[in-house]
Amino acid sequence: MTDHLPFGEVRNPRFFGQDILSVSQFDRSDLENLFGVAHEMYGMVQRVGTFDLLKGKVLTNLFYEPSTRTSSSFVAAIERLGGSVVQINNVTYSSVSKGETLEDTVRTMEQYTDAVVLRHPEKGAAARAAAAAVKPVINAGDGPGEHPTQALLDAYTIKEEMGRFDGLTVTMLGDLKYGRTVHSLAKLLTLFDVKINYVSPEILQMPQDFMDAVAEKGIPQHATTDLDEVLPETDVLYVTRIQKERFENPSEYDEVKDSYVITPDVMKGAKSDMAVMHPLPRVGEISTDFDTDPRAAYFRQMEYGMYVRMALLALVLGRA
Amino acid sequence: MTDHLPFGEVRNPRFFGQDILSVSQFDRSDLENLFGVAHEMYGMVQRVGTFDLLKGKVLTNLFYEPSTRTSSSFVAAIERLGGSVVQINNVTYSSVSKGETLEDTVRTMEQYTDAVVLRHPEKGAAARAAAAAVKPVINAGDGPGEHPTQALLDAYTIKEEMGRFDGLTVTMLGDLKYGRTVHSLAKLLTLFDVKINYVSPEILQMPQDFMDAVAEKGIPQHATTDLDEVLPETDVLYVTRIQKERFENPSEYDEVKDSYVITPDVMKGAKSDMAVMHPLPRVGEISTDFDTDPRAAYFRQMEYGMYVRMALLALVLGRA
Amino acid sequence: MTDHLPFGEVRNPRFFGQDILSVSQFDRSDLENLFGVAHEMYGMVQRVGTFDLLKGKVLTNLFYEPSTRTSSSFVAAIERLGGSVVQINNVTYSSVSKGETLEDTVRTMEQYTDAVVLRHPEKGAAARAAAAAVKPVINAGDGPGEHPTQALLDAYTIKEEMGRFDGLTVTMLGDLKYGRTVHSLAKLLTLFDVKINYVSPEILQMPQDFMDAVAEKGIPQHATTDLDEVLPETDVLYVTRIQKERFENPSEYDEVKDSYVITPDVMKGAKSDMAVMHPLPRVGEISTDFDTDPRAAYFRQMEYGMYVRMALLALVLGRA
Repeated sequence: MTDHLPFGEVRNPRFFGQDILSVSQFDRSDLENLFGVAHEMYGMVQRVGTFDLLKGKVLTNLFYEPSTRTSSSFVAAIERLGGSVVQINNVTYSSVSKGETLEDTVRTMEQYTDAVVLRHPEKGAAARAAAAAVKPVINAGDGPGEHPTQALLDAYTIKEEMGRFDGLTVTMLGDLKYGRTVHSLAKLLTLFDVKINYVSPEILQMPQDFMDAVAEKGIPQHATTDLDEVLPETDVLYVTRIQKERFENPSEYDEVKDSYVITPDVMKGAKSDMAVMHPLPRVGEISTDFDTDPRAAYFRQMEYGMYVRMALLALVLGRA
Repeated sequence: MTDHLPFGEVRNPRFFGQDILSVSQFDRSDLENLFGVAHEMYGMVQRVGTFDLLKGKVLTNLFYEPSTRTSSSFVAAIERLGGSVVQINNVTYSSVSKGETLEDTVRTMEQYTDAVVLRHPEKGAAARAAAAAVKPVINAGDGPGEHPTQALLDAYTIKEEMGRFDGLTVTMLGDLKYGRTVHSLAKLLTLFDVKINYVSPEILQMPQDFMDAVAEKGIPQHATTDLDEVLPETDVLYVTRIQKERFENPSEYDEVKDSYVITPDVMKGAKSDMAVMHPLPRVGEISTDFDTDPRAAYFRQMEYGMYVRMALLALVLGRA
Repeated sequence: MTDHLPFGEVRNPRFFGQDILSVSQFDRSDLENLFGVAHEMYGMVQRVGTFDLLKGKVLTNLFYEPSTRTSSSFVAAIERLGGSVVQINNVTYSSVSKGETLEDTVRTMEQYTDAVVLRHPEKGAAARAAAAAVKPVINAGDGPGEHPTQALLDAYTIKEEMGRFDGLTVTMLGDLKYGRTVHSLAKLLTLFDVKINYVSPEILQMPQDFMDAVAEKGIPQHATTDLDEVLPETDVLYVTRIQKERFENPSEYDEVKDSYVITPDVMKGAKSDMAVMHPLPRVGEISTDFDTDPRAAYFRQMEYGMYVRMALLALVLGRA
């Protein structure tokens, strides 16, 4: 691994120097490639903890809104790769942002560092930053926009837990209307030969345009309000949080909030070889009693997230 | 030093993989072992500044309340050992904690990192975190609970400054009622053959149950309101801050606040070979005029603190 | 490069172990030396990204007020030199500062680390810190006091962009009355054979005492309100922000704010081989339309800033 391979000699040129803005950038072979690199990262971390693949590289971790989980995951990722990080939190309170545009802030940070991870509350912020920057920008969530590394880590978790995608039945549970993560994950899953079930209260159903896009790819789908109906056939249960604020009427919330709580008892109706996922944080959607069940994959999901982010960093910086 | 010594081959298995929650975990031989490792750290930092003992390791520094001194000390400690750190401040304002339990936050962070240092305002928080986590948790203060690394660094300071514990007279001064540090230090000192004096205003005396516990170990004790009475025999003077808020009546505070101020003049009554300690910050309890006196050990105490934390990290991570 | 060269063998002893508090510490040969080291840093970063010149060293980055740009620049600088950093933000909200003096905080941090970068809102804070500390203190801005590393990076930018100082005409534009950066830069420029123009609204003119100090060194100066008058002869145009708050009467501000906006059209009147600088952040003083012009040097200026800070760190720590 030398420091200055000419472009043509980067072993894995697909995302070298690229921005990571949306899951739409990834086709099936990109995903397989990414997950292969992530799996190598997994193995290396188990063996040596950290290694010097990105020695010489410095990452800006630019967070306009707090997201400790995502931020920490990227910090651990670059550090385990032997690189360094410039962490910027709460930009809105700092002088950098005193009337400064996002574009100028990002152009400043790319003078100091080799890539920029950006979390921003506004949709489209990551694309604006990427348009201004010469160096790679990785979207770590831009408000109601995208959060591609979350969707990629969700998909990678399925791969690690189940060993494959094709033939799986994936059931999404909870708030499917506003849940950005399930929308992006559904999009990625259409690259494979899966079946998708949607389980939610009526008012939080998967939006029709997302279902149309999935249907267009020939992916079988089924929407229901009844978890028990689809739990027995489920290989992957993706649980999301139902936020009280989504309901106009608090009593409506009280009605549904307990109907989708995952407990050891509920899970008696599921396969023994399946995985329960959750993007976290959870607030009661999964009982802590279930945490010790081997099917409880949500903390491993966090760990897989670090490997996916390591793989993305290595890819965009030309060292994968 | 290889990365994966089987357990039996860790040179110093006593605290390998363990949590550090309380000073009660340490007996005399544990302390001697810890201080031996800390002294090696001291020597290495003097010689080379940083070294790669914990290369490959990433530490979470998880602070639910600010404590710049303790936090910085752990950051410098892991960095001087060649490891990396994921720093998390003000968790309460971040999304990680949006209704997320401490247990879930800690279980998430241990997916990314190899150990968790935890500062939390609630008593028992460190034990709860340790119960949830697989990886080592180090208690960096849990409110009115314990702050074991402070007590350990205090004891190590005595060892480095005076060369021994046995035979020493240690005088504790100031707020002995609410001062968590003096309670823990007293507990550690009972492992040695010392005498302890307590000097405080009546209303801030050492609580009876702590004195009983000390007495039970056969340690001679003496409580007084008069510093001059015990200063001449004192080998270690441990000064603490008296907080105005402890007094119901402000005039009571004004009466006592100046009676325990350490000045060059006061210190004329002390031995020439002794040490003045303070956990810092100080607010007038020790005059800055005394800072240049060779007996003023409180800034060296900060430095020793880093070596003790380096030693603890190396021990729990199996590299000491 | 060994770790413990005796003092006499430090290759570049001029600033070894010194504080960096003011531009007044630098004479012409110091600047040439500093810029030579900075240029070596530039070359090394281009070649390898990071390198181990300051391996073994830990830096405290102590910011009592936010300044993301300056802070990030120092973090990237120490990391690219193979050192580590203890970052402290918002000290005012933390326990370190609970009534603790700046002096005690700095003395604590120098126990953990090898040098302290200090940003503080009060004039003279850096000198106070330096007086208390044994280890080097670098002033990263002390309120209305100095911000020497900004002035040094400004001067270094001129050197890199224009290849020389002697014979250049430097035009300063905007708020020259309150702009700390232009005052310090003017002071540094008097070490060379330059001409300085001042362009500003009447009420924001360069203060007379600064002009007197420049005149004393025999440097030709010219003050005007009209940019067009001096733009054709300008080699370096240093643009600063005019803050609305400087004007008693908002209508006065509205009158002048647009008269000094740099656009591609305005710049038609300038040389083709010249440089436009700005300390950033900008808020409209330079049109983004001009950013792609090769004369737009303000983002490169940020990059040069990192090299100057790397050079300063290497010099004070005896490794340059």
